[in-house]
Amino acid sequence: MREKIESASFFIGRGDDHDLISFGSGQPDMAPPLSAYHVLDNYREFKYGLIQGELALREALAREYPEATPDQFVITNGASEAIDLSLRCIAANGGAGGKVLLPRPYYYSYPFNVTFAGLTPIYYDLDQSGKIDFESFARLVPECAAVLINSPSNPTGTVQEIATLRKIEKLCDELGKYVISDEVYKDLVYVRENYLLSGKKVLTVNSFSKTYAMCGLRVGYLYSKNKEIVQGVIEMKTHTSMNTSIMGQAMALASMKERDAYVAPHVAIWRERRDMIYEGMRALGLDLYKPEGAFYVLPKFKEPTRVMHDLYYNYRMITYDGTWFGAPDRLRFSYALDAQKIKEGLNRLEKFLNTEYRNY
Amino acid sequence: MREKIESASFFIGRGDDHDLISFGSGQPDMAPPLSAYHVLDNYREFKYGLIQGELALREALAREYPEATPDQFVITNGASEAIDLSLRCIAANGGAGGKVLLPRPYYYSYPFNVTFAGLTPIYYDLDQSGKIDFESFARLVPECAAVLINSPSNPTGTVQEIATLRKIEKLCDELGKYVISDEVYKDLVYVRENYLLSGKKVLTVNSFSKTYAMCGLRVGYLYSKNKEIVQGVIEMKTHTSMNTSIMGQAMALASMKERDAYVAPHVAIWRERRDMIYEGMRALGLDLYKPEGAFYVLPKFKEPTRVMHDLYYNYRMITYDGTWFGAPDRLRFSYALDAQKIKEGLNRLEKFLNTEYRNY
Repeated sequence: MREKIESASFFIGRGDDHDLISFGSGQPDMAPPLSAYHVLDNYREFKYGLIQGELALREALAREYPEATPDQFVITNGASEAIDLSLRCIAANGGAGGKVLLPRPYYYSYPFNVTFAGLTPIYYDLDQSGKIDFESFARLVPECAAVLINSPSNPTGTVQEIATLRKIEKLCDELGKYVISDEVYKDLVYVRENYLLSGKKVLTVNSFSKTYAMCGLRVGYLYSKNKEIVQGVIEMKTHTSMNTSIMGQAMALASMKERDAYVAPHVAIWRERRDMIYEGMRALGLDLYKPEGAFYVLPKFKEPTRVMHDLYYNYRMITYDGTWFGAPDRLRFSYALDAQKIKEGLNRLEKFLNTEYRNY
Repeated sequence: MREKIESASFFIGRGDDHDLISFGSGQPDMAPPLSAYHVLDNYREFKYGLIQGELALREALAREYPEATPDQFVITNGASEAIDLSLRCIAANGGAGGKVLLPRPYYYSYPFNVTFAGLTPIYYDLDQSGKIDFESFARLVPECAAVLINSPSNPTGTVQEIATLRKIEKLCDELGKYVISDEVYKDLVYVRENYLLSGKKVLTVNSFSKTYAMCGLRVGYLYSKNKEIVQGVIEMKTHTSMNTSIMGQAMALASMKERDAYVAPHVAIWRERRDMIYEGMRALGLDLYKPEGAFYVLPKFKEPTRVMHDLYYNYRMITYDGTWFGAPDRLRFSYALDAQKIKEGLNRLEKFLNTEYRNY
């Protein structure tokens, strides 16, 4: 797996090549709300903030979630840290050595996060439409300490059915299992409002990175009505990283104030790109899930790793190997780039499919 | 221990009370270099940075360390994350379940960091002068996976003898033990230049927090010539927090450019404060180490926890219980506050010693 990560690293920093089209990195290309930068104009803070996160930011978040209070949030170094600390606290709270149930395909960090926390990942496969098959899921829950749900999903782009999510809530509640719900794409759903998973042991992971295009600033959060985990995460963070950057938090708060003006027009842009790449790939005869959220497509290929290398060396296109995401028969394309580049990428892909790929 | 941390949290955020004098929090009260804020004037970055840290910052750091190269640094969310990830990598590299040797008194996070990484802390006591007794230290090294050195020390304020540090380097090198050297106060030494611990398995932890008064911005780093650990930390950070705030890194780099103009005058201020509080406490008859670096004094008291509460409720002074630092017969005073407040604090302390304390 080390090799795979190094492969991914290989692409990073190669985006300045003008001919290169990157469908690789999963981050918005559009800028954050301008007001996020305006808070910097006279910014002079430098002291430690609260480990849990600035109160004003947690108050703003509490208004965004139903019946939430500021003490139910912990501001973290991106969603990554929220996941890491949640898993470590689950391990510390008697889950040590236990299993964590992951969907497959999965976001490539999940198996690492679980392992680094001293837990063991086990998997169930999403069905042919990229949806959770509740029976496959439910069969494995009893033996797990926690389950992880990711809807909308990176890398499949699918959104789970509300009926299924309700069954998951009920089952995990009854069995007393922790549910880590990674909803970082909650504001990038094309088919309905986001469904917030809830329950006594639900830990919602979220971020400002995707909603407000602030990936590099690393501001995410954990939200939970489970006091034990919230307290555990704060205690752990006291020693492992202390407060999240107070400046990043100030920018996150400023962004939230522009929510209405910013989010809806951006979703419209994402939808346009989604339509373009999804329909374009279908027209090329590729087999892929229809993205209902986030900004990824995951088409099937024969010999995907070879395709990835061919596309990179011969067509100047970066894609990510599905193997990194538990989908060894696919490649991930992020469509976080402008329409013109998506179109040019599709043209190159068409050429590739009509030439080299015929000999695979 | 949970209770103790909650006690510490209890004090946080109570600093706005004008009558209150806080000798609690260990952070500089003086502002960072102004140029650190100037980089924000036209700042418009928002994308992911390199997990390892921005190259320009690592290049600047490499110039500050002898024979160092940029690839030997990883920029982290403060020194805390550097310690957390280092310990987790040591555990992953075959050290799992092993012991980590800590000095006592210790920085209060160390035992947590070690435990959270799945390792076990063991301790040796610093001598009557707050120095490492090499024999006590050396006796325990063979059974450990790693040792942690903290010179200058929080909370003792002492700096270890160069002869001792050299013996430690030699012993750990011979036995092949990891040495985590927390040198976050390297630029706040009153008695000599900092001595950089070095060796094949030395992991130097540092930060911009103390040198440049940027605690809340959370920019620290790991520096090591041990490629395996550096690579392991980068891989782990890829999944647990990704890049450190790109904006914080830009401010750190700007600060480094002002190093000469900023650091020396600030050390002069710290030294003045050190003299005032050390001599003041000696004049009050207290028993304490003479601080040679950092900004803490750790005087002895009868019933320190009771003294802490008395000072807080009756004299409006925040101090930290030595128990949190493995020094149950002492209280920690941070002197990161202006001379007038230190003087007033000493006056209040004198009153306390001449009244309530007589009846202890």
